[in-house]
Amino acid sequence: MKSVTVYDIAKEANVSVATVSRVLNNTAPVKASTRERIQSLINKYQFQPNALARSLIKKVTGMIGIILPDITNPFFPEVLAGLEQEARKQGYTFFLCDTGSSNLDIKEQYKRETQYLNILMEKQVDGIIMIGGRIDLHKCSKEMAKEVAEINKRVPLVFINGNLPGAKFHRVVIDEEAGGRMVTEHLIGLGHRDIAFIGGYSQMSNTVERLQGFRMAMERAGLPVREEWIDHGGFSVQRGKNMMGRLLEMDTVPTAVVCANDLVGIGAIKAAVKSGLQVPRDVSITGVDGVPLAASVIPELTTMSLRCLELGRAAASVLHGLISKSGDVQTLTILQPELVIRESTSVPMQKEA
Amino acid sequence: MKSVTVYDIAKEANVSVATVSRVLNNTAPVKASTRERIQSLINKYQFQPNALARSLIKKVTGMIGIILPDITNPFFPEVLAGLEQEARKQGYTFFLCDTGSSNLDIKEQYKRETQYLNILMEKQVDGIIMIGGRIDLHKCSKEMAKEVAEINKRVPLVFINGNLPGAKFHRVVIDEEAGGRMVTEHLIGLGHRDIAFIGGYSQMSNTVERLQGFRMAMERAGLPVREEWIDHGGFSVQRGKNMMGRLLEMDTVPTAVVCANDLVGIGAIKAAVKSGLQVPRDVSITGVDGVPLAASVIPELTTMSLRCLELGRAAASVLHGLISKSGDVQTLTILQPELVIRESTSVPMQKEA
Repeated sequence: MKSVTVYDIAKEANVSVATVSRVLNNTAPVKASTRERIQSLINKYQFQPNALARSLIKKVTGMIGIILPDITNPFFPEVLAGLEQEARKQGYTFFLCDTGSSNLDIKEQYKRETQYLNILMEKQVDGIIMIGGRIDLHKCSKEMAKEVAEINKRVPLVFINGNLPGAKFHRVVIDEEAGGRMVTEHLIGLGHRDIAFIGGYSQMSNTVERLQGFRMAMERAGLPVREEWIDHGGFSVQRGKNMMGRLLEMDTVPTAVVCANDLVGIGAIKAAVKSGLQVPRDVSITGVDGVPLAASVIPELTTMSLRCLELGRAAASVLHGLISKSGDVQTLTILQPELVIRESTSVPMQKEA
Repeated sequence: MKSVTVYDIAKEANVSVATVSRVLNNTAPVKASTRERIQSLINKYQFQPNALARSLIKKVTGMIGIILPDITNPFFPEVLAGLEQEARKQGYTFFLCDTGSSNLDIKEQYKRETQYLNILMEKQVDGIIMIGGRIDLHKCSKEMAKEVAEINKRVPLVFINGNLPGAKFHRVVIDEEAGGRMVTEHLIGLGHRDIAFIGGYSQMSNTVERLQGFRMAMERAGLPVREEWIDHGGFSVQRGKNMMGRLLEMDTVPTAVVCANDLVGIGAIKAAVKSGLQVPRDVSITGVDGVPLAASVIPELTTMSLRCLELGRAAASVLHGLISKSGDVQTLTILQPELVIRESTSVPMQKEA
């Protein structure tokens, strides 16, 4: 048996689909007699518009699209969990779009972002959240930024931890510079003077800002920054191992290493231990992110928590405000990172002697 | 300006929407003159049906729904990455439905699964993949199983690593029993006789099967299984710490511990090290899953790789076969796990002495 559609109802009531829609959704006045005729047909057929038909009628899909660069980096599932907790309360479901950057060259990643943005517009999502990818670029090309600005005109859009030039975007960000500064101040406070910074990518704003914080803390303490101890080579455990390995082969080695994220910190610990050092006795190591994994390694990693769950929740809340047009929505929400002191940092050996 | 819809085209051509659909999608013959009339209107208006309208017409949305229990457990992002790699080739996008079980009591989780199943049906996804949750129950209630069986009649559905009674489901599974057996045989081969098994949940089939494999290996080697050394208390790092802590407080302690997954293995290593033991010198520890994290801890965890990426890829491929009705699709796909020997296992101390 063919099920009854909104078009069948419209035909039988001899009205337009739009009129049926108005009755179904109570979006505009309809003449009483017409309303009755339509309502009686709805009752007669026990008509229940399906989700897609409702979407066409109401232009609301209940779907949020999320574009992220790498689901296997534990930072992103943590942020997603926060997003989900909050957005689920509002009845949203998700399109997860993973651009899979960990296995791609960088151009391919941005191309995929473009594809996903188009798909999400096609699917008529109610809103989009972007995290990572081009919005993390320190200098994004005009063309790529414009693409997103165009989307921003058509659908509510929120960035987590990033920005693009040429337009005003709604953003929920962590204060990256404060993160880099505070973790470095923690090491300086312990007595370290010879501190390295490894990890990240020099073209990414999160890396640039964390490094700025690092430089600021060093400068304030009157400590020199040794440029040969600054190394940007990625965000993975393996890259962390490699960068730490290079540091340890130098003639002079630092007593402490600020790593650009937790995975690099874990890799750095591994490299240090493999080369016969003890952490933190011989070298202190810190991370940034605050993923649960950072508390699972031995020694447990001292880190700057970027408060993933809160970031996700705040972004969902801003997006919901934009979608539901409920009052004033802040354009910029800034969260402060939190220093989490664990086992991978201590006073430098010289001080103990 | 109002954009032209399929209904406008149908009205102007004086045909039904279904006829326009047939021309657009080439799904059934249409009289030549009618086809021409419709095609000329399509050309005139440069009509391009949007994704939702196309969905209504073709009953194909290009969307796959994925229901999983906990995105913050690194096993699931790994499987998702595999799914995505494969399904993206076919042009699918995803609805990710995380039931967030890690923060829920178990009944709430199954309720949420039901909600998500309904949402996915409403959204008219092309197919659904389920992993974890009720399909992992050793004995699922008839009612909960029936719910899924009903869905299975209406939309292509694939299980990863699970099953339900009362119907024939398409499944892609790892041989869990072989996993438990092989990892235990590895320890026995090193000379261990006193082996514990910790982690998982006794009501879950993956735990039951891994434990069966453990028992089989012990029996084949003529070794006794000490029931006080079998402890089911969850799948997290924290639970692993707790269970290992309890083991180490016993009068007699094992020389090796088979953990039900990698997170429990990592927790067990932490508990052992905290209590002053060296791994593997004093106690050998193994995991199951093969998440990247298992290679990042110190010592690196010997584990049974459940081949997450391949699992995901195989499931995507089976689902695509069902959706596209392309030839024979295997009902059951079984993958064999792989033993990955790293640093957390060695000969027991007694043998060294």
